[in-house]
Amino acid sequence: MMKSIVSSKYLACLVGSIILNLLFIINIYVGGQWKLSWSSRAAIEAETVAAIYCSGHGRAYLDGLVVVGNKPVCDCNTCFTGPDCSQFIPHCTANADGGDPLFLEPFWMQHLASSALVVAGWHQMSYTYSGKSFFSEELAKVVRKVHASVGNAVTQNRFIIFGAGSTQVLSAAVFALSPENTSSPAKVVTSVPYYPVDKQQTQYFSSQKFKYEGDAYRWKNRSDCSITNMIEIVTSPNNPDGQLKKAIFHGPNVKTIYDHAYYWPHFTPIPAPSDEDVMVFTLSKLTGHAGTRLGWAVIKDETVFNRMMIHMQMNSMGVSKDAQLRAFKLLNVVLEEGTGIFDFAYQTLKSRWERLVQTVSLSNRFSLQENNPQYCTFYNKVRQLSPAYAWLKCEREEDKDCYAVLEAANIIGRQGNLFGVEDGYVRLSLVRTQDDFDILIERLHKLITEEDGDKTM
Amino acid sequence: MMKSIVSSKYLACLVGSIILNLLFIINIYVGGQWKLSWSSRAAIEAETVAAIYCSGHGRAYLDGLVVVGNKPVCDCNTCFTGPDCSQFIPHCTANADGGDPLFLEPFWMQHLASSALVVAGWHQMSYTYSGKSFFSEELAKVVRKVHASVGNAVTQNRFIIFGAGSTQVLSAAVFALSPENTSSPAKVVTSVPYYPVDKQQTQYFSSQKFKYEGDAYRWKNRSDCSITNMIEIVTSPNNPDGQLKKAIFHGPNVKTIYDHAYYWPHFTPIPAPSDEDVMVFTLSKLTGHAGTRLGWAVIKDETVFNRMMIHMQMNSMGVSKDAQLRAFKLLNVVLEEGTGIFDFAYQTLKSRWERLVQTVSLSNRFSLQENNPQYCTFYNKVRQLSPAYAWLKCEREEDKDCYAVLEAANIIGRQGNLFGVEDGYVRLSLVRTQDDFDILIERLHKLITEEDGDKTM
Repeated sequence: MMKSIVSSKYLACLVGSIILNLLFIINIYVGGQWKLSWSSRAAIEAETVAAIYCSGHGRAYLDGLVVVGNKPVCDCNTCFTGPDCSQFIPHCTANADGGDPLFLEPFWMQHLASSALVVAGWHQMSYTYSGKSFFSEELAKVVRKVHASVGNAVTQNRFIIFGAGSTQVLSAAVFALSPENTSSPAKVVTSVPYYPVDKQQTQYFSSQKFKYEGDAYRWKNRSDCSITNMIEIVTSPNNPDGQLKKAIFHGPNVKTIYDHAYYWPHFTPIPAPSDEDVMVFTLSKLTGHAGTRLGWAVIKDETVFNRMMIHMQMNSMGVSKDAQLRAFKLLNVVLEEGTGIFDFAYQTLKSRWERLVQTVSLSNRFSLQENNPQYCTFYNKVRQLSPAYAWLKCEREEDKDCYAVLEAANIIGRQGNLFGVEDGYVRLSLVRTQDDFDILIERLHKLITEEDGDKTM
Repeated sequence: MMKSIVSSKYLACLVGSIILNLLFIINIYVGGQWKLSWSSRAAIEAETVAAIYCSGHGRAYLDGLVVVGNKPVCDCNTCFTGPDCSQFIPHCTANADGGDPLFLEPFWMQHLASSALVVAGWHQMSYTYSGKSFFSEELAKVVRKVHASVGNAVTQNRFIIFGAGSTQVLSAAVFALSPENTSSPAKVVTSVPYYPVDKQQTQYFSSQKFKYEGDAYRWKNRSDCSITNMIEIVTSPNNPDGQLKKAIFHGPNVKTIYDHAYYWPHFTPIPAPSDEDVMVFTLSKLTGHAGTRLGWAVIKDETVFNRMMIHMQMNSMGVSKDAQLRAFKLLNVVLEEGTGIFDFAYQTLKSRWERLVQTVSLSNRFSLQENNPQYCTFYNKVRQLSPAYAWLKCEREEDKDCYAVLEAANIIGRQGNLFGVEDGYVRLSLVRTQDDFDILIERLHKLITEEDGDKTM
């Protein structure tokens, strides 16, 4: 009897132990981790750094600053400091300046497993893909799929070229559309308010081929324009004001570049797929990866495409394959997730815009850009802009320098005159981190309510 | 008795099972893999693709071409084909054209674990590092360490800037060194034989600021040069011939850019650390990662540095952070391995050069560049060049078009006239895959021995 109890205890232990063994075996062999060899060290390293706690107000990077010892430190959001970014800096300045698209960071933090990337040391060392092109065919395929799934651009029978962000792609397009042998340079124009980089970049690279000629409206109806080569850059949705813009110039001597960086359903209704001659897009405003520097153009004409290829060769011998690989990975996640990233981004920006409207509407001192509803084929409904930037106007006569008004209230925006208009306007970025946006709203609210306080005095 | 046997069998099984459990626990918890969570899927994916068998004549890439189904196919070396690159293509053309530095690929295949890289989806999304610069301070630190360990450049109290390969960095330097307000553009010169890209790029971007003016020797001793702004690009070691070159022009109106892409101990003796005003380097010819597009300049003057920063902003809003991260990882391996990568690369190129010399010496029809021994401070010995390129001369009167002579023998080199000299010269690349080099030697050997056959007829 005693022995039989012992035996059955043994048996129970044995069965338990065997089950545990089976679980381990299943875990190891079915879990897939059994396969890992050369990538383990790097994976542990990356996960260790990613696990560094930064209080939700920062994050540590694999190549982040190393202050003491060997471990990267937290990279804190504006207005936060301390080893774990937990200390709020009182009275700090709200940064609403640049278009750093960190509003999308939480999406990627929620999609860790699918968006991670492992790169072998010997990965893609060559200048080219299979000895052919500087540009990945597989990436171009994914880009076409993304456009098809969103319905924002026609890519069938179109050429696709990549560059270091839309910045390099826009420049390549200007060079490529300029006449080769001409006595007078092509006039490059943009209509106010325009994206400042178009002006600065065109002026910087100006040559006998092209010259920046300012606001497009200034040239409208001038007779000499019908004989001159014109290149119009149309930023649509526009930066700063988010409006869907159309070209001002048309005709045989006119070339048009559509900068569609913001033509994605998180920023704007998509009335129809764009089908322009040269359309420029960027990963930065689609997935939020500005630092990757990966933009592309969708091009109708083969000659223009070939000339842009030459530009990319002359300028930088193609574009980083590491950037192309990263884009390939991220865009595949975009496709896998269906409407996921657009829903996330749209909801975020819509809620930011609504909070901003609510805050600004407390006063008559400021106004925002128009926001007329339009039908969006992506969401199959009428909707408003959920723009990347607020185009804020100071309405009072005495607030001529709107930038200074905000600066005095501890808010840094971008001055209206950079966009070719008077300083009654300021651009406020709505695409930065949630911290940046929250502090912006707080500062704006304070500015507006204190103003009410002044009034009642 | 029977029961006791059963019991002891149970006991043995139990003990065995418990030991197995312990082994699993040790394996999982001490092996370190227990930590892996979000990176596993990507790691398995990368290792699976890397394990695709390509017969040693190719490799499969994560973003490689997908022909059927979902799995990337082998990317085969020149002259090899088939699903696993096992089929040799008879009579195929030897490719000795471009400078694709695949000779370093085996080094990275031998250092899999240390050179692997894992990137989180949310890694470095911002344009800048910590809101400050487009360029990674941590990468700059590693670059300084590499130069210090090799002794090829002085970097203390120098500025470092990154760009998309030396191509973009060289262009940034030309723009930055051109006078701002001038009636006559700076003359950009290079001495023959020169690196063709310098000419092509300068001509492509030429403006009122600078103009390409051809061979430097042509301008030497001309009186008007003392009053004109000159920019001389000195490629040293030179591309095509590997010689350590010095500037031809000196004086208050002369700016010099040293292209030191090949100033590493695998290509050349290092007589002393270079200490020039503007020195340009590239990952491509150091680690072999041409596709990453990551070059840098070491700069003495702050104004020049600031102007190059503006160029990088205007041109591409900085440089891909993915490229910077990859470079950071790879250069850290370079440092970890001491002289490892240089030894590997030097031995490979030395042996290639010796095989080439042996082959060419079988005939008087061809000759190679001079290769005078010099003291190398890195190896503490007198040694010869182990150059990246052979600068082959066709010695016979009737072989004026040396490129055509080689082409007829199924060898593609790069025509001498691209380098500013007559077509009696051809550049042959010695830095490509081992397959490319082997086939080059085979074709050359055949050409030379058949020629002997002709002679004996």
